[in-house]
Amino acid sequence: MGTESYTGRINRKLNKKLRIVEVAAGREKADLVLKNASYVNVFSNELRQGDIAVAEGLIVGMGSYSGETEVDVSGKIVLPGFIDAHIHLESAMVSPREFVKAVLPHGTTTVITDPHEIANVMGADGIEYMLQATEGLPVDVRFMLPSCVPATPMDESGAVLDYRTIDSFYDHPRVQGLAEMMNFPGVIGADPQVIEKIVAAQAHHKKIDGHAPDLADNDLNAYIAAGVYSDHECHDAADAIAKLERGQFIMIREGTAAHNLEALLPLLTPQYADRCMFCCDDKHPSDLLEKGHIDYNVRESIRRGVDPILAVKVACHHAARYFQLNNRGAVAPGYFADFVVIDNFQDFHILQVYKKGVEMYDGKEVHDFQVPEIDPYLVQRAHDTFHVAHLTAEDFSERRPRGIIGMVPGELVTTDQGYSDHIDPEWDILKIAVIERHKNTHHIGIGYLQGYGLKKGAVATSVSHDSHNIIVVGANEEDMAAAANRITENRGGIVVMENGEIKGEVVLSIAGLMSDGSLESVNRALESAKAAAFALGVSRDIDPFMTLSFMSLPVIPTLRLTTRGVIDVMNQQYV
Amino acid sequence: MGTESYTGRINRKLNKKLRIVEVAAGREKADLVLKNASYVNVFSNELRQGDIAVAEGLIVGMGSYSGETEVDVSGKIVLPGFIDAHIHLESAMVSPREFVKAVLPHGTTTVITDPHEIANVMGADGIEYMLQATEGLPVDVRFMLPSCVPATPMDESGAVLDYRTIDSFYDHPRVQGLAEMMNFPGVIGADPQVIEKIVAAQAHHKKIDGHAPDLADNDLNAYIAAGVYSDHECHDAADAIAKLERGQFIMIREGTAAHNLEALLPLLTPQYADRCMFCCDDKHPSDLLEKGHIDYNVRESIRRGVDPILAVKVACHHAARYFQLNNRGAVAPGYFADFVVIDNFQDFHILQVYKKGVEMYDGKEVHDFQVPEIDPYLVQRAHDTFHVAHLTAEDFSERRPRGIIGMVPGELVTTDQGYSDHIDPEWDILKIAVIERHKNTHHIGIGYLQGYGLKKGAVATSVSHDSHNIIVVGANEEDMAAAANRITENRGGIVVMENGEIKGEVVLSIAGLMSDGSLESVNRALESAKAAAFALGVSRDIDPFMTLSFMSLPVIPTLRLTTRGVIDVMNQQYV
Repeated sequence: MGTESYTGRINRKLNKKLRIVEVAAGREKADLVLKNASYVNVFSNELRQGDIAVAEGLIVGMGSYSGETEVDVSGKIVLPGFIDAHIHLESAMVSPREFVKAVLPHGTTTVITDPHEIANVMGADGIEYMLQATEGLPVDVRFMLPSCVPATPMDESGAVLDYRTIDSFYDHPRVQGLAEMMNFPGVIGADPQVIEKIVAAQAHHKKIDGHAPDLADNDLNAYIAAGVYSDHECHDAADAIAKLERGQFIMIREGTAAHNLEALLPLLTPQYADRCMFCCDDKHPSDLLEKGHIDYNVRESIRRGVDPILAVKVACHHAARYFQLNNRGAVAPGYFADFVVIDNFQDFHILQVYKKGVEMYDGKEVHDFQVPEIDPYLVQRAHDTFHVAHLTAEDFSERRPRGIIGMVPGELVTTDQGYSDHIDPEWDILKIAVIERHKNTHHIGIGYLQGYGLKKGAVATSVSHDSHNIIVVGANEEDMAAAANRITENRGGIVVMENGEIKGEVVLSIAGLMSDGSLESVNRALESAKAAAFALGVSRDIDPFMTLSFMSLPVIPTLRLTTRGVIDVMNQQYV
Repeated sequence: MGTESYTGRINRKLNKKLRIVEVAAGREKADLVLKNASYVNVFSNELRQGDIAVAEGLIVGMGSYSGETEVDVSGKIVLPGFIDAHIHLESAMVSPREFVKAVLPHGTTTVITDPHEIANVMGADGIEYMLQATEGLPVDVRFMLPSCVPATPMDESGAVLDYRTIDSFYDHPRVQGLAEMMNFPGVIGADPQVIEKIVAAQAHHKKIDGHAPDLADNDLNAYIAAGVYSDHECHDAADAIAKLERGQFIMIREGTAAHNLEALLPLLTPQYADRCMFCCDDKHPSDLLEKGHIDYNVRESIRRGVDPILAVKVACHHAARYFQLNNRGAVAPGYFADFVVIDNFQDFHILQVYKKGVEMYDGKEVHDFQVPEIDPYLVQRAHDTFHVAHLTAEDFSERRPRGIIGMVPGELVTTDQGYSDHIDPEWDILKIAVIERHKNTHHIGIGYLQGYGLKKGAVATSVSHDSHNIIVVGANEEDMAAAANRITENRGGIVVMENGEIKGEVVLSIAGLMSDGSLESVNRALESAKAAAFALGVSRDIDPFMTLSFMSLPVIPTLRLTTRGVIDVMNQQYV
């Protein structure tokens, strides 16, 4: 394609279009016809009946058609494929290929991912890796470019991305814009290095997503006037409406870490729903397997009284409109033949899923699909992101008193629990360390942790927001060193260690974030590692790995741990 | 700007954006604040109250603000500026500068024009002329590129535009797409030369407007699947809904030649209005002066019971969304400070109009503005479009019988009235001729006309759809020749002639379509020429010039006249 002339390109598209017209006009047979369909018409806001004809991967018409393949869908309902408006695909801990297998049965045919996690590890190469790993998959994976790498200047990440570093990615046909602008103080404070990222995205006529919990009044005006078009951090309806009425689109988030659907149900009414879409932000393996994906949001919304047509529109059409993916999110001529076939709105069982006119899920299993080839250099680079020396207990010894971070069950916020100078499992005082692992700096930040409950051994993870250094918590320094070393050996993942013995582990060797295995195998390893962590005493009201993974994110109050020590987030000072 | 580097461009925009943020956050004074405004919030669908702050031509926030200029708008209602979604600007018979003066008092701040008329005369140079003539005007003039020049192969126009001829215009920042695809039989019939125009527009990620009265079922599917995203030819609600539910946006047209607002009122309800916008298609001078523009549609809609907020959204927000003019059509941070200030929804008097934060109309007059310079070559070219030899009565003599075109009062369709071989004013049989005037071919098509009513003299016009050859109707050949010659002498316009004496005339020397004078002067000349035509016997239930101007358009049934003779439109055969 690289050497195709403009005329050649037009001719190629022309031939495809001529066939579409022939089929639509009824002069040629369609590739596929869903016969006798009831389908959601997102334009007239009603259920309509008819055959749906498909050619060249697009819907060509609704009415009366015959096709090479005809599938009778009498008595069923056909919906446009669902769109997740904002996800960090890495959160599923599997490769994009495996992620796709997991979400197809849930009716997802498009996701907008922000490769923020892998970009913190691999920089621009991480974005490129994800672009290549998602090319041509039967779930269309679109990208927003990470806006905040590192998340804060306090972080020691694997890369620093300024506007110039990401700029060339805007030319990629699957890049929709600039991802969640978490640095809202930088925007409101008119920090040129922050604003120029927005300006560059606008210069490319791209979208800019927001992330600004509770921002209000003139500060909210400033954030929006700067050019931030959406928000997915709304946790109550008033916050969401304040943003919506200033022009932002609202992404109603229901994921593993945050659950906003219930609080935002008041938005799913004719007055507001037009500017709303669904997203998950992150979805861990067990959540994907047990609850599902965007289908869960639709099902739950309907169960709670939302008009089914409206819920479906929020799940597909509105996100497509926001991202200017203009030919998806509807059953209409010229639109992608991405279909979800369900039994009825009440039960909402997904019977079949089609991507561009090809059945990908038949109600039992996902059909095989071609997996893209990734540049071998990038594959090697993605599997070699740990640059950290062998550690010993000595590396974790520390005589001076350090701050104690207090965990709060079910919350991401922490409390300030004072100081300690030694581990004391009896009083639930554990040692916690963050080990810089990108550049072999041997920076190790040490502190104490209360509320985790571990009685013996150590737990370590390389999924640690947002820089993904190694975070390790332990009842003794020997196991802390052993757990951290094992993660390096595995090129990433999660380890539960006791007396030098591996009690559980998850290998995440793609950038230390994702497994090369299947979602089911990762989930099994995770569940078994969790059980091992609980067996070592970790409090059962805490997710042993997810909660730990947020202890290093120095933007959530009160205390956090970076590679340089315990930090008071509100004052941005080391304690 | 042509030599500005990317970094330079980003820096320039950055500095503007930094100031916007400073003002929005309340740290700097705004350029303009509309104090105590009630404004239509198109996102929450309600009236909201607050100050509206403006900086750098954009709205930066609503709330509490102070500004260099503060205007108290207590008790008034602020609306976003109106958008005409489809107009042929040439139909106002004045230059864009004069058109802008005429529509600003009506609250229009953006129009999407299709320079179809001038392109039929001047080809690509006509498009370029209009682009240059509209640069920087205080009504933002956006373009759709003419898709059907000539309108049909039967026409002898001044140019033939294929997809390559117009392709480079897609790079122009004010070009939004491909204009009304009138050749719907060509689309449905999969004519490659028609479809490739659509394909090229899509390759540039541009919109494609439709024009397909009464198209239905699979043919409509084919037309839409080909890539046609809107329609403005709907004359009843059922037709409009059939198109809307297949994904087309509906432009509700209320213009001089066609009036669809009343019939399409059922669309202005929550079920459908989201996909509707207003347009006029064409607006003649008297219509603009007497009725107004998009404001007329809003006022009329409200008077007939449409929810005012919804009517306003149809007049601004929805067109902006369709054309992906993403920062206009709302009162919200980051949006254009294009405002219409009215007294109330019932009276709907327009008190002030702002364009990008500058008051352009104060309730009495339009403020001065800078007029763009047009390339002198193009100015000269636009004023030299008549290439036709001096004519004599002999040129119009014809012994053989010719078809009689029957005019129908108030309609554009004609009837087949048989044959004649001579003029007979007593039986209302007049001679009509179309004189090719672009390329000096001396092609003159001759026929007869019934229903026009002229008793003596001749009437001629160079506004003759769509090729804008000279059309002349007369009670004698001498006056026909004199009238046609006078038009050539004037380099375009309208002439009423009796016994070699000019009884009325309108000089339209820009491409034979537009005057260099003011709208008022053109209107006066038109009214006086009309009176002269009526004095010569033209039937008072006919618009003497507009109706005549459609006699040469060989796409409307039944009989028409081209430069090659009388044609039966349905059979596309000469009679």
